[in-house]
Amino acid sequence: MNQKVLEELVKKNKQYCCKGKNADYIPALAKINPNQLGITLYNIKTNETLSVGDSSVRFAIESISKVPALLLAIEDNGLSNVLKHINTEATGFAFNSPLNMEINHAKHPLNPFVNIGAIETTSLIKGNSSDECYRRLLTFIKEICHDNTISLNEEIYQSESKTGDINRSLAYYLKGNNMLSKDVEGVLEVYFKQCSLNVTTQNIAMMASVLANKGMKPWDNKRLISEESATLVKSVMTTAGLYDESGEFSAHVGIPGKSGVGGGLMGVAPNQFGLGIFSPPLDSSGNSLAGIKLLKDVVDELHLNIFD
Amino acid sequence: MNQKVLEELVKKNKQYCCKGKNADYIPALAKINPNQLGITLYNIKTNETLSVGDSSVRFAIESISKVPALLLAIEDNGLSNVLKHINTEATGFAFNSPLNMEINHAKHPLNPFVNIGAIETTSLIKGNSSDECYRRLLTFIKEICHDNTISLNEEIYQSESKTGDINRSLAYYLKGNNMLSKDVEGVLEVYFKQCSLNVTTQNIAMMASVLANKGMKPWDNKRLISEESATLVKSVMTTAGLYDESGEFSAHVGIPGKSGVGGGLMGVAPNQFGLGIFSPPLDSSGNSLAGIKLLKDVVDELHLNIFD
Amino acid sequence: MNQKVLEELVKKNKQYCCKGKNADYIPALAKINPNQLGITLYNIKTNETLSVGDSSVRFAIESISKVPALLLAIEDNGLSNVLKHINTEATGFAFNSPLNMEINHAKHPLNPFVNIGAIETTSLIKGNSSDECYRRLLTFIKEICHDNTISLNEEIYQSESKTGDINRSLAYYLKGNNMLSKDVEGVLEVYFKQCSLNVTTQNIAMMASVLANKGMKPWDNKRLISEESATLVKSVMTTAGLYDESGEFSAHVGIPGKSGVGGGLMGVAPNQFGLGIFSPPLDSSGNSLAGIKLLKDVVDELHLNIFD
Amino acid sequence: MNQKVLEELVKKNKQYCCKGKNADYIPALAKINPNQLGITLYNIKTNETLSVGDSSVRFAIESISKVPALLLAIEDNGLSNVLKHINTEATGFAFNSPLNMEINHAKHPLNPFVNIGAIETTSLIKGNSSDECYRRLLTFIKEICHDNTISLNEEIYQSESKTGDINRSLAYYLKGNNMLSKDVEGVLEVYFKQCSLNVTTQNIAMMASVLANKGMKPWDNKRLISEESATLVKSVMTTAGLYDESGEFSAHVGIPGKSGVGGGLMGVAPNQFGLGIFSPPLDSSGNSLAGIKLLKDVVDELHLNIFD
Repeated sequence: MNQKVLEELVKKNKQYCCKGKNADYIPALAKINPNQLGITLYNIKTNETLSVGDSSVRFAIESISKVPALLLAIEDNGLSNVLKHINTEATGFAFNSPLNMEINHAKHPLNPFVNIGAIETTSLIKGNSSDECYRRLLTFIKEICHDNTISLNEEIYQSESKTGDINRSLAYYLKGNNMLSKDVEGVLEVYFKQCSLNVTTQNIAMMASVLANKGMKPWDNKRLISEESATLVKSVMTTAGLYDESGEFSAHVGIPGKSGVGGGLMGVAPNQFGLGIFSPPLDSSGNSLAGIKLLKDVVDELHLNIFD
Repeated sequence: MNQKVLEELVKKNKQYCCKGKNADYIPALAKINPNQLGITLYNIKTNETLSVGDSSVRFAIESISKVPALLLAIEDNGLSNVLKHINTEATGFAFNSPLNMEINHAKHPLNPFVNIGAIETTSLIKGNSSDECYRRLLTFIKEICHDNTISLNEEIYQSESKTGDINRSLAYYLKGNNMLSKDVEGVLEVYFKQCSLNVTTQNIAMMASVLANKGMKPWDNKRLISEESATLVKSVMTTAGLYDESGEFSAHVGIPGKSGVGGGLMGVAPNQFGLGIFSPPLDSSGNSLAGIKLLKDVVDELHLNIFD
Repeated sequence: MNQKVLEELVKKNKQYCCKGKNADYIPALAKINPNQLGITLYNIKTNETLSVGDSSVRFAIESISKVPALLLAIEDNGLSNVLKHINTEATGFAFNSPLNMEINHAKHPLNPFVNIGAIETTSLIKGNSSDECYRRLLTFIKEICHDNTISLNEEIYQSESKTGDINRSLAYYLKGNNMLSKDVEGVLEVYFKQCSLNVTTQNIAMMASVLANKGMKPWDNKRLISEESATLVKSVMTTAGLYDESGEFSAHVGIPGKSGVGGGLMGVAPNQFGLGIFSPPLDSSGNSLAGIKLLKDVVDELHLNIFD
Repeated sequence: MNQKVLEELVKKNKQYCCKGKNADYIPALAKINPNQLGITLYNIKTNETLSVGDSSVRFAIESISKVPALLLAIEDNGLSNVLKHINTEATGFAFNSPLNMEINHAKHPLNPFVNIGAIETTSLIKGNSSDECYRRLLTFIKEICHDNTISLNEEIYQSESKTGDINRSLAYYLKGNNMLSKDVEGVLEVYFKQCSLNVTTQNIAMMASVLANKGMKPWDNKRLISEESATLVKSVMTTAGLYDESGEFSAHVGIPGKSGVGGGLMGVAPNQFGLGIFSPPLDSSGNSLAGIKLLKDVVDELHLNIFD
């Protein structure tokens, strides 16, 4: 795919920005210019990067941070130990709902990409203090995104923390059922911070490219995470990466993906591309509306669908 | 992979037969010799077939029939029309539970591979009578399995029909909520019959090979189903093919799969292999226990994991 | 209370007829004149009857029939045996929802006044055929209502049977979980028929007066049901007689009640009055809107609230 | 009833102490001597008190405190305002489960006697600080129990607060859904303290007698709460006072009741008696096992069943 084709696809899908709606639970997200669409493709075979549109705009990583948090938790504890704390099943309900756990009296969160599972995941990151946990995760994210300038959006963080009562409810549910070994507020501090990091589509594409490249950073050919870990995470992104829209995303787009309410969308084409997309307006499930449409077009154009 | 390696993998996994438990809701399944394990690999590039163990034993297709029923429904109505009646999301609950639909007041079954969605699917197969629907489906299954001798196991059918009250409950739920256009008993007759067909691992491997081959029968290079249809079905097998164990199966095995309580297991390695496995004892989610373990070993040996 | 006071209360509450909405799932109920309100009070101490408004209009008994069905099931099997099949807890959900049973894997319906529990109840009525069960129940209802002319509304019955698929779903759920000893269609035939009997507010008031009078028919002082049975039924009417509005009804009206979607409402003031009310338009929970308001006024006027 | 008869009933039911199990979520409750059974009857017509067994033992009031908290919230805000924040329906689930609210997207807790509703109730008590709210509630409880010596069990309070994470989860659920106007930790401090007050069966019987006496303190004939408030609370005790055992309690005992995991049980016989019972071992729903059996015997002996 050349620059021109990608530009046409971005142009074609820009119209969908006005069909969605920015996240509005915090002012810092509501006020973002909705009319933005950007994309970065990282080709792991050629190490070439292709960027179009609003690809250097910094936006809140939000739930896409659940991926590097899981990867670091696996590096810290080993995959099998992490899977003793979190399952890999879709819940069938919204991102912030613990209904399935409650109904089935589940002993662990169903997957690491709904909020309750992500809070559990974050609690597994090692560190002697919540600050150390956060710093270790930030360092890991800088490395996997190949960008040392990634930093906290303090306004987002303050808002996330202030309005995060449903997440507090979920964390105390875990704590009250003996599924959380650390103290709730400390874990949530790391969780709210990890969601509040500013990233670009280039950052997201780099992270995706490491997953696409079996855990090796394609730009320096050095291993960052195990192949086993990369494979598992791509699988869970496929079955549970877009909340209760995961099955539809898998059926219509067909590559592992992970979305964030900040408008970010990560796509992984195994052994081929890492993709990062940004467009703030969301669909009813909380996923970037124009972003998904653009990703589908790119996947189709490049024949990346893993089920094809 | 040569015959010898496959024989070793079958031998290695035979021990797990005794760890599971035959389906016992009907005598015809309970009484089957549990100590059986068979596998067939169909290589779509070479058109070679490799079979080991109990690969010519006939067993009840059960829920694997949900795949050809969906394929025929798509051929009959078009993919987009089928998706107006059935979604493609995992439910988060057991194969026979309508809980998620009820809680979310869903207007359609969540996916075609839980029972309530499969009953809906079967109702979409065209025909002027339930007998014609059944005959058309049987003809289709014979063709996709490349075996004209496939036929009804009358004992299984009678038992399925006699003990099928939970399925009746699901079908009347659909009917009562205006989601089923045909009459319940007629649809269930087709549904119970499609579950009661006798097949072999060779049959299952052939069907899987058509999906692996983008909808073309590899043995004669003729198209049976559309590429779009084959891709979608592989995606839904990945996100919802093994009920509430789908995410774990996807994470640990890593190819589209579909199981049946008769002990059958279908695996699809896109552009490479169709796989059919048979071993009657099931795990707690209702999937062939030794079958899944053998499939994982084969996938690992042949590097078929689609997420790797 | 004299005739004049009651007339004023009926006149006052007649305005609420237009605030509700007739049941419309079957034409026979939808087409009924909504602007009707009638009441009968039976004073068990004086054996005097007071009727005002549309008290001799015949209407479908619908769910009020769940009370005599339960009473006959208790007479047939003994109270303790009935309680082995049906509990006495409120479900927290709508009249036709089995959600609570499913979520809690309940071994019995939660109470006899939601549909699934009422179907179970009807199945416990003795008889060698569904026709005999129905005839026995009809005879019992004629006796407890002191009216030999009570008969089936054939139009309602045909409609109930034809549109009763959610009830079929519930019945097959019971059957599939081994909670129903008889065949589904036979039980439903009785159930649909019991719901389709034509009654008047006078009939309902007589039935209520037997419950108010500890099981003795006040008009001839003969025992029809045991005191224990009458007491239990009044208790269950209080905790579960108006579906998911039972708690509110109990808090605002304060006597045991049972409603039907035909617009009927039965109230029991222990040791004092039996009350029957009729007004077709329903509130959002399916209870007679003007009926409840009138009943509250009568209860307040006569100081009948059992919690006061 | 004379002293001797009551002694016999206590003696008869003492055997059931060993059939239940102390609450064990905190050591302070687990370590209490299980072999205790005490009762106090307060006759509101004669102002006589009858006490037998362990009637002067101080025990933690726990959930019985939900009754005076509700009464004070009603006094502070008016009944209709309280009912804008809390409904009066049974939930169908355990005392600490928010499932029904979540499934039905309820805008208010279903009733004031499950934990989530009780936390809401406590938040409605007026005061400029949580300490003031607590002191006002303590003063009210001392008055309704006619005992100025009632005080906090500090050990219980510390344990309740330390292990109260499920309650924190519920409170943050309310907060996150905009149902709680005060800050969570402040409300929970009052809530945990109100649960940790030490009371006797005599205290409980006095409180019950005020409810039985339409809101007037029978000992000095002065009104403490409105009649309307007393009536409503008795109604809600009947439909929801014993959690998911409320319907069974109502069916088998037949008077308004409220239990606490400390082993306390309050019963109200309108216009006749206030009853307080204490026996620590609980049944599976969390209600005093011997306590319920003794209460039933007393109700039967004195013919207090409100449905009879």
